[in-house]
Amino acid sequence: MSSVRVSPMKACDGSSEKIVIKVGGVKYETHTSTLMALPGSRLANLVDTNKPPSELFFDRNPEVFGHVLQYYRSGKLHCPTNFCGLLLEEEFAFWGVSGTDVEPCCWATFRQNKETVEALAQIEPSVMEKEEGPGQNHQSRNSRAWMQKIWALFDNPYSSFTAKVIAIISLFFILLSFTAFSLQTEPNRYLSPFYILRTGNSTGKCMGTPLVDSLDVVELVCSVWFVFEFVMRVVSCPSKPRFFMNVMNIVDLLALFPWFSRCCSSMYCWKAMSFLHVMRCIRVFRIFKLMQHVFGVRVLNHALRASATSLCTLPLVFLICTLIFGTMFFLTEFENENAYFSDISSCFWWAVVTLTTVGYGDVLPISGPGKLVGSLCAMVGVLLIILPLPIIINNFIKFSSLLKTKYSMPRTKEKHIVDTAPSSSA
Amino acid sequence: MSSVRVSPMKACDGSSEKIVIKVGGVKYETHTSTLMALPGSRLANLVDTNKPPSELFFDRNPEVFGHVLQYYRSGKLHCPTNFCGLLLEEEFAFWGVSGTDVEPCCWATFRQNKETVEALAQIEPSVMEKEEGPGQNHQSRNSRAWMQKIWALFDNPYSSFTAKVIAIISLFFILLSFTAFSLQTEPNRYLSPFYILRTGNSTGKCMGTPLVDSLDVVELVCSVWFVFEFVMRVVSCPSKPRFFMNVMNIVDLLALFPWFSRCCSSMYCWKAMSFLHVMRCIRVFRIFKLMQHVFGVRVLNHALRASATSLCTLPLVFLICTLIFGTMFFLTEFENENAYFSDISSCFWWAVVTLTTVGYGDVLPISGPGKLVGSLCAMVGVLLIILPLPIIINNFIKFSSLLKTKYSMPRTKEKHIVDTAPSSSA
Amino acid sequence: MSSVRVSPMKACDGSSEKIVIKVGGVKYETHTSTLMALPGSRLANLVDTNKPPSELFFDRNPEVFGHVLQYYRSGKLHCPTNFCGLLLEEEFAFWGVSGTDVEPCCWATFRQNKETVEALAQIEPSVMEKEEGPGQNHQSRNSRAWMQKIWALFDNPYSSFTAKVIAIISLFFILLSFTAFSLQTEPNRYLSPFYILRTGNSTGKCMGTPLVDSLDVVELVCSVWFVFEFVMRVVSCPSKPRFFMNVMNIVDLLALFPWFSRCCSSMYCWKAMSFLHVMRCIRVFRIFKLMQHVFGVRVLNHALRASATSLCTLPLVFLICTLIFGTMFFLTEFENENAYFSDISSCFWWAVVTLTTVGYGDVLPISGPGKLVGSLCAMVGVLLIILPLPIIINNFIKFSSLLKTKYSMPRTKEKHIVDTAPSSSA
Amino acid sequence: MSSVRVSPMKACDGSSEKIVIKVGGVKYETHTSTLMALPGSRLANLVDTNKPPSELFFDRNPEVFGHVLQYYRSGKLHCPTNFCGLLLEEEFAFWGVSGTDVEPCCWATFRQNKETVEALAQIEPSVMEKEEGPGQNHQSRNSRAWMQKIWALFDNPYSSFTAKVIAIISLFFILLSFTAFSLQTEPNRYLSPFYILRTGNSTGKCMGTPLVDSLDVVELVCSVWFVFEFVMRVVSCPSKPRFFMNVMNIVDLLALFPWFSRCCSSMYCWKAMSFLHVMRCIRVFRIFKLMQHVFGVRVLNHALRASATSLCTLPLVFLICTLIFGTMFFLTEFENENAYFSDISSCFWWAVVTLTTVGYGDVLPISGPGKLVGSLCAMVGVLLIILPLPIIINNFIKFSSLLKTKYSMPRTKEKHIVDTAPSSSA
Ligand SMILES: [K+]
Ligand SMILES: [K+]
Repeated sequence: MSSVRVSPMKACDGSSEKIVIKVGGVKYETHTSTLMALPGSRLANLVDTNKPPSELFFDRNPEVFGHVLQYYRSGKLHCPTNFCGLLLEEEFAFWGVSGTDVEPCCWATFRQNKETVEALAQIEPSVMEKEEGPGQNHQSRNSRAWMQKIWALFDNPYSSFTAKVIAIISLFFILLSFTAFSLQTEPNRYLSPFYILRTGNSTGKCMGTPLVDSLDVVELVCSVWFVFEFVMRVVSCPSKPRFFMNVMNIVDLLALFPWFSRCCSSMYCWKAMSFLHVMRCIRVFRIFKLMQHVFGVRVLNHALRASATSLCTLPLVFLICTLIFGTMFFLTEFENENAYFSDISSCFWWAVVTLTTVGYGDVLPISGPGKLVGSLCAMVGVLLIILPLPIIINNFIKFSSLLKTKYSMPRTKEKHIVDTAPSSSA
Repeated sequence: MSSVRVSPMKACDGSSEKIVIKVGGVKYETHTSTLMALPGSRLANLVDTNKPPSELFFDRNPEVFGHVLQYYRSGKLHCPTNFCGLLLEEEFAFWGVSGTDVEPCCWATFRQNKETVEALAQIEPSVMEKEEGPGQNHQSRNSRAWMQKIWALFDNPYSSFTAKVIAIISLFFILLSFTAFSLQTEPNRYLSPFYILRTGNSTGKCMGTPLVDSLDVVELVCSVWFVFEFVMRVVSCPSKPRFFMNVMNIVDLLALFPWFSRCCSSMYCWKAMSFLHVMRCIRVFRIFKLMQHVFGVRVLNHALRASATSLCTLPLVFLICTLIFGTMFFLTEFENENAYFSDISSCFWWAVVTLTTVGYGDVLPISGPGKLVGSLCAMVGVLLIILPLPIIINNFIKFSSLLKTKYSMPRTKEKHIVDTAPSSSA
Repeated sequence: MSSVRVSPMKACDGSSEKIVIKVGGVKYETHTSTLMALPGSRLANLVDTNKPPSELFFDRNPEVFGHVLQYYRSGKLHCPTNFCGLLLEEEFAFWGVSGTDVEPCCWATFRQNKETVEALAQIEPSVMEKEEGPGQNHQSRNSRAWMQKIWALFDNPYSSFTAKVIAIISLFFILLSFTAFSLQTEPNRYLSPFYILRTGNSTGKCMGTPLVDSLDVVELVCSVWFVFEFVMRVVSCPSKPRFFMNVMNIVDLLALFPWFSRCCSSMYCWKAMSFLHVMRCIRVFRIFKLMQHVFGVRVLNHALRASATSLCTLPLVFLICTLIFGTMFFLTEFENENAYFSDISSCFWWAVVTLTTVGYGDVLPISGPGKLVGSLCAMVGVLLIILPLPIIINNFIKFSSLLKTKYSMPRTKEKHIVDTAPSSSA
Repeated sequence: MSSVRVSPMKACDGSSEKIVIKVGGVKYETHTSTLMALPGSRLANLVDTNKPPSELFFDRNPEVFGHVLQYYRSGKLHCPTNFCGLLLEEEFAFWGVSGTDVEPCCWATFRQNKETVEALAQIEPSVMEKEEGPGQNHQSRNSRAWMQKIWALFDNPYSSFTAKVIAIISLFFILLSFTAFSLQTEPNRYLSPFYILRTGNSTGKCMGTPLVDSLDVVELVCSVWFVFEFVMRVVSCPSKPRFFMNVMNIVDLLALFPWFSRCCSSMYCWKAMSFLHVMRCIRVFRIFKLMQHVFGVRVLNHALRASATSLCTLPLVFLICTLIFGTMFFLTEFENENAYFSDISSCFWWAVVTLTTVGYGDVLPISGPGKLVGSLCAMVGVLLIILPLPIIINNFIKFSSLLKTKYSMPRTKEKHIVDTAPSSSA
């Protein structure tokens, strides 16, 4: 790089001629020798002839040219912070100066807006896609239009008033079903499968025949709604493969099964079914669809996705710390007669409970070294809780400004029409 | 967009004439063909005649025009970061260039100050309103002025010395009343209604007749003050409807009722009344009025309000996690003979206690799968505690700078008077 | 403000003459009518004569004048972000434009650097003060110089090697004294006053006569050092009043008393003394003196001090929440036979333990409403833990950049000497 | 400083001549007396002759000269924010103006990019070093090339597919060994040394003779792999001293010993060995090598290292708080008959458990003052958990932007070649 640099002072002493370069009306003056500093660039090519011109005119940005000329003079390409990096890149390209010549100190300045544009393009491109999608098959058949209407009715609660009502009905049935499930867990409800499972007393009745119970009726009504809703959504969905690749839809499908649990005779089968019941509970997460319109939640969503790979390491660190502290706890305490645990799995449980600072107190260190391990474990836990925060906060600040820009950006461009009549003095 | 762009290089080759545009003394030079790139704009209209002028003069900002000219040249409207967006908008409007043409990379720059001004206007407009409010009814009747004085006395502790004294007296009575209430809860105070409620032993006395007790006297004195204070505030308040829509005033009103609890004969009535007693405790929150002058608290107040809609989703997520983990805990543990719980409500309680990392240890998982659910629950809890932070921090940083600007902004503008005598050389 | 504005368009149509203003070599051109927009300003005064000059020259900053001229044109004073606010203020003052005319959108830009300079001046001014302090009484008597040496020896561990050794010796004695104290608390050490206090068995010995014990000897040695150190510091300190106003020195003084506890015969006296013993422990905080040189700790120190008034509200909010949740807990549980508490003070203890998410589990809600209050209390606690963070983080970021600037700023200014010989072409 | 300033106004009144300075084509005009304000600077030297020139030409940056000239005029050197500080420094040096003259308000602006460049140079210089390292001994012998290949195979899982397989095998053996170790801790596994250690019943067998057990076989296989891996790494490592200074390699070495634990006859020896076993667990941290490619983890790594000295004070503060609160707890509770502890070490354990908000509930305050100490301790604990966050967040934000710049910076510079043919009008 140093060989490129021609000291402007040395050049002044001798034969080098002055050259005037007018760029967009602004007059710049320099020595022709200075322009030779960057061989291959536009100006060097123009000057590097037998008869270099004494004046040049370019219809380009004059201020950016000032910085390009400074590159010729000093051999270092600094970027002004008041110009957009994309504008600089375009002008640099015209003058035959590569953007990679930018000094490390100004590299962040030079790149910043380019990265912003790239991030803006990546962020929620699906929104654009979706909007144009319906536009394309505008002349499609009537049945298709009906499908879309039904789909919107069941999928997007903000599309119409009926859709809102359906969303509320759906939520009501989810909560009703969950309440019915909760009431079935009452300890002395002897007809409940939970009772039978715990006591082993099937009261002489065959599990296959459904028992008439008020809760069963509720369950039946709920299941009918769920089946109806799922069928409507499957039929009307625009793309079947995409529908079944969505995790929430699979959850919906699995949430239909508990209803059939009464029909299966095996106890183990029923137990497996009851786990599927929890799935219904997960359906409550559908409420979040209603919350995606809150700005903070949307930003948080983006920030968490961007931090996902980093945050994934956290459970791993947690696991390793659990293994290490659990083992150390075991080794310091196992000889003790009064130790709270009998095998190492309890030690791992203790480590988890201490690392998350929950601290139930069911397993405890009693010896001195054990308490030392416990103290260390608690302090590492506190640190682990804190660690993911900077990543999320950094990404949140970034996406907050990106989304604010995205949402405030104009969709359509206005025409160039001057409000008032022409009135400039020539 | 690409059709708009006229390559300045192509234009140089031929018939296009040069045009000099002098803007505020600065000379810009370009081709007339370049100016035709944006049809409908002021310059295009001026040039698009049979005899385009060879020179134009505008008494406008020369530097901003440089960027407008660059838009003609390159077809892309970038914004300089060293100019205020509002100034740019005004100049763009003059030249017939729409602000919506600004490139995505520079959109945030362009909008930033406009958003700041809008946010500054929205922030605490009530301050302005209040200041002008008294000014309007300045010539009102004497009685009205008295009302305002009394209102200030009881509502704004910073208005006068007497107001401060009243605020301290009020605080003293709140604390006195609370202490009296606390002392009444002593377990072997047999005259106390709490004693009667717990033991069911009313000691043969009718609840309707008030018992003579030293604490009752204290209670009486406090209640007299509270009634006096409330009456004064109701009478003197400027707007009755607004007064009763304020939550704190409703709390004040409800806090008057416990006094009457002695007069009601039913035990259930008394119990309901004792809950109202806690309301008095809430009155202590009035101390916060004294703290609104601390800058950090004020910013936090604004940040929390701005994050309110986002933060409202947090309790909901908490609730859903409680339901899901509680149910999973129930399903993994209910078969166990030694399970700590008898019904599912205890499982929900366990989930809450674990999600908040409180971990009392009264309900515990004992089986392997149960402990796994517990570990997961504790880790999700740690994450949930962390999640709202980025939203609050982001808003806090934003409002901190907004409020700092707001408070440092001058209220009145000075006149333009030069200190020294004129001394420029013409 | 609107009356001030003169539309430049209207002015172009008529009689107004053009005027050329040359500022520092840059030529600006405008109409004389434009300059009349701000009556009282320097340019308006110059133009507002019978024969306004056609050209003016000022040896001032040309670029800033461009923005001042823009104020004349548009009636709005925007600030460029690439100029220092202090420079702008100076130039504005010359042109007779008040800084209070700056638009709200640019006010933060205009004030930013002024605030930075003010904050830099306020931050650690004691450093400067101290440095110049010794310089003033440089020719003081010999004894005074000795005093200063001894003071530095005992107060600033970084002043010399001997000072470091003394600091380490001091730390060693603190830890030794603390260890001796800890060993005295052994449950079956019957000579220990703790044993006597607990069992009430004074073993027939008079407390006034010191018991010969190995720990007593250690205690004696430590106390001799502490007395010696304190006397040296008192004698050599530069200002006695300031010395005794320092909290740490009062702690040192109080930490001398435990030694005399053996001489007092009363048990209650001894108990009071033992609390003073803890004071010695506080002396360990002197280690922080060694840590003030760590950058992060220094910034945190400043950030915490700046957040002090805001953070002070936190314990208050904690207290109020404790009172409210404690009372609510009492009211929901007191009727229960199996309630974990007997009076309301236990409820307050429960509220504190739950709000801080410690959750010992010694007091617990058992009824449904009690558990609801507990859930709410835990969630409020989690929120309270989070709330102070934004304040500290905001101040930390601010002071981090301020201190970095402060420490990188040059102490002395270099002279203006050009390295190379003069070589410009005239 | 004030003596330096020459009021431009005063100079206007008299004898001082005007001088035109053309810098890179831009014409600046000032008084010669103004240039005398900074004696020793380049312009002052040129002017300070009998016949000062009336015009000067310099082939330097015109805009920066504008700011230098402003320094002559006002005596204060402010920096524009739109120019890179390094460019300013270079230009200032040419004009004979020292960078230390920059005003405090602009100092941060002036230094910012310089600090960024220094930070970029310090950050991960090893990457560059490593890349050039292999290039130097490119013509080394065949055996050396083989060594490097083996080293890469065992050290860098990303170097080749085989390396990845080896990494997975290694991880598998670590987990297998850990599982075998865990299974050996089963309470009624009478052959296990843990059983013997706890019960003291050696079942009449000599510990020296290895017991045939399925877990022992697994252990043997694992150990063979670990020895093989370690030998390969030792042999192939490029620098032995550096290899043994790495903590992870020492851990690997210690992790080989447990295998020999069966051969030692003493119980105490075995116990010591079992602690080495935990070392193997630490080897799992090797997984982090695979995660260093995640951006967030890398930034967090840098942020934690930069915050290390600050974070080191945290455990110290924790320790001091533990000592103080532990002692205070002891003094408030030791007289109580029902106190949960018998000696002061339990109090320290309680303090740690409360400060970290774990709160097991095995040691508890029962008296009023004890509960007060406990409340204080819990609140201080909450504050301590929060304190390190601002330091980490501040450093994370800093390193996040630094690393983003570092990774986006071009490795090689392109040549200056203009795409299109020359086409400017002279
Ligand atoms: K806890
Ligand atoms: K706990």
